[in-house]
Amino acid sequence: MFELLKTDSQTKARLGRLTTARGIVETPVYMPVGTQASVKALDPRELREMGTQIILGNTYRLNIRPGLDIIRAAGGLHQFMNWEKPILTDSGGFQVFSLAKIRKIKPHGVEFRSHLDGSLLFLGPKEAMEIQHVLGSDIAMCFDECPPHDAPAREQRHAVERTIRWARECREQPRADGQKVFGIVQGGSNPALREECAKALVEMEFDGYAIGGVSVGEPEPEMMKAVEFTVPHLPAHKARYAMGLGTPAQMLELVARGVDMFDCVLPTRVARNGTAYTRHGALGIKGGGYKADFRPIEENCDCYACKNFTRAYLRHLLKANEILGLRMLSVHNTHLFLKVMADARTHLAAGTFTEFYREFIANFTPSQRILAARKKETER
Amino acid sequence: MFELLKTDSQTKARLGRLTTARGIVETPVYMPVGTQASVKALDPRELREMGTQIILGNTYRLNIRPGLDIIRAAGGLHQFMNWEKPILTDSGGFQVFSLAKIRKIKPHGVEFRSHLDGSLLFLGPKEAMEIQHVLGSDIAMCFDECPPHDAPAREQRHAVERTIRWARECREQPRADGQKVFGIVQGGSNPALREECAKALVEMEFDGYAIGGVSVGEPEPEMMKAVEFTVPHLPAHKARYAMGLGTPAQMLELVARGVDMFDCVLPTRVARNGTAYTRHGALGIKGGGYKADFRPIEENCDCYACKNFTRAYLRHLLKANEILGLRMLSVHNTHLFLKVMADARTHLAAGTFTEFYREFIANFTPSQRILAARKKETER
Repeated sequence: MFELLKTDSQTKARLGRLTTARGIVETPVYMPVGTQASVKALDPRELREMGTQIILGNTYRLNIRPGLDIIRAAGGLHQFMNWEKPILTDSGGFQVFSLAKIRKIKPHGVEFRSHLDGSLLFLGPKEAMEIQHVLGSDIAMCFDECPPHDAPAREQRHAVERTIRWARECREQPRADGQKVFGIVQGGSNPALREECAKALVEMEFDGYAIGGVSVGEPEPEMMKAVEFTVPHLPAHKARYAMGLGTPAQMLELVARGVDMFDCVLPTRVARNGTAYTRHGALGIKGGGYKADFRPIEENCDCYACKNFTRAYLRHLLKANEILGLRMLSVHNTHLFLKVMADARTHLAAGTFTEFYREFIANFTPSQRILAARKKETER
Repeated sequence: MFELLKTDSQTKARLGRLTTARGIVETPVYMPVGTQASVKALDPRELREMGTQIILGNTYRLNIRPGLDIIRAAGGLHQFMNWEKPILTDSGGFQVFSLAKIRKIKPHGVEFRSHLDGSLLFLGPKEAMEIQHVLGSDIAMCFDECPPHDAPAREQRHAVERTIRWARECREQPRADGQKVFGIVQGGSNPALREECAKALVEMEFDGYAIGGVSVGEPEPEMMKAVEFTVPHLPAHKARYAMGLGTPAQMLELVARGVDMFDCVLPTRVARNGTAYTRHGALGIKGGGYKADFRPIEENCDCYACKNFTRAYLRHLLKANEILGLRMLSVHNTHLFLKVMADARTHLAAGTFTEFYREFIANFTPSQRILAARKKETER
């Protein structure tokens, strides 16, 4: 399923090719997130034009709304949302632990109340795989327990134990035609737990491995460590996916640490607040400084927004609450995330990844929050 | 400027061609409304693909936000919003009388408080034309007084007097290169006032004539009468524009009464509430009946929404507050309004307009509100 085409000579970065039932995904890859069967504010044509290879769907969300009956009747998630390329579905583990307000962990899953209408629901390995079977995704994820980053050691240990046990159950469930299944490594920032979890999952021979328990509120240095503690225990010939990450610079940092796949809601989420990502960092387009700035968001960007509109116009749209404003920032941001990964692939193929990566990081200004976390880490 | 190509043999419908500085507009025509320099939720490519020939901009809105300095610096409204085809700008008269909360009518215009920040502003014929000069629209509208439909006779008379006086002032103001100016006929549902206003404006020889004081809350029969009272006093060789109207069926009714141009916010406004227009009337796509309805909004419709998505999927998007839902309904509705006018042109050219128009009206179910108003009118 995963072909390792090339490994960078100076970093752990890899050029790869993932073959799914609905086509090939070149890695490293950014996967736009379509939680509720729609990548927020974007249409399938826009996604295709940006070079999207694969998108995400969400078990927890889609099971609650529109519900499985509708998606089954539509002929699966691809047909329901008219997306013919690969889809990866998250198992719902993350949402059960982050969205559902009241939950009770049981041996075979989690009982919880719907965040929408409070109705009592149950999701475990069996249910998550059944739902993903109906959704018909090309890559399904195991149902895992994802504790918060500051969970006590005992809780992290229990989460790893349950994640391993549940992964084994997921492994046994029926799958959709050609559907691949990835295991998810938990263990927080504890190297021993990460190793234990990774090794147990690798033994089960999944089609790929994800690093979970990141993007759960931890500071950036802790996130990097969680990945560094996990990657060495994953096989070279399987795809590696860091869940829910990150900024363009963070994705490159993780590519350099041996990660192949990313998903992140940042491009469309920050767009709705008027923030555009560029190769130099984030721009708050609503700022007064852009009032009469008739340059595109980013020079030399070939996205639809940059080819057609100025910062001044986009600022006006955002200030006036015109939907086209957040649409165009979503277009630009998603395009940038995809393009940075496409550039990484080009440079990996050409043997120039390290230079590209170092230059990108040097030019990219991280957010104040990330800078503060790095400073704290250095002072420690 | 306006070439009358053909008049229908059984109705007053006309096939025409309006030549502007930025190209030809075939009439009858529907003009999508871009109040704040954006046709809500749509991008210029989508508008072009639907066959949009000309869009509207708004003097009152754009003067307040982003403000003239920005649009002047951008090189005019076309460049600011990246729309290279014709733009018609409303004068702001309608907004001053509908949006601004506190206003004081003076001899040379209206003093009012901005609906945004309450600041004191003044708009009159001179100011409205100056603003439209900077916007650089292809068709500018005279600054008029637009009273509510239930205004007392005395107020309607004063509005007509001021509208005529202000039109004369507008006539004298400098214009942008190649900019045409239309007069606006007021007079409510009073035939004598409509005639007086129309004749006075026609004497001033404007490039075209609009019927204002419609779409101001009046029942449909009163709106039809206002148009019927006005059209006979307008010259055949000038374009006629009914402001702010209507449903697809109402537009055809007005085409049959000799109107050439329409603008209406309905397609994008109702889209945001989950309503789709079809050739059979309005559909509330959020309704439970469409939960598992895998047909397009409208069979045989070749808009992007109908070619790609089902009612069930659009319903899900609307229920889940996904922006793609209101985007796709905006696409479908705007496409339909444009297409109905394109069909009217085709049938006018072929000499089959009356059959087309009668069949369309017979198949189209108006809203309960419109039906009630018609019933009341018949019983009177």
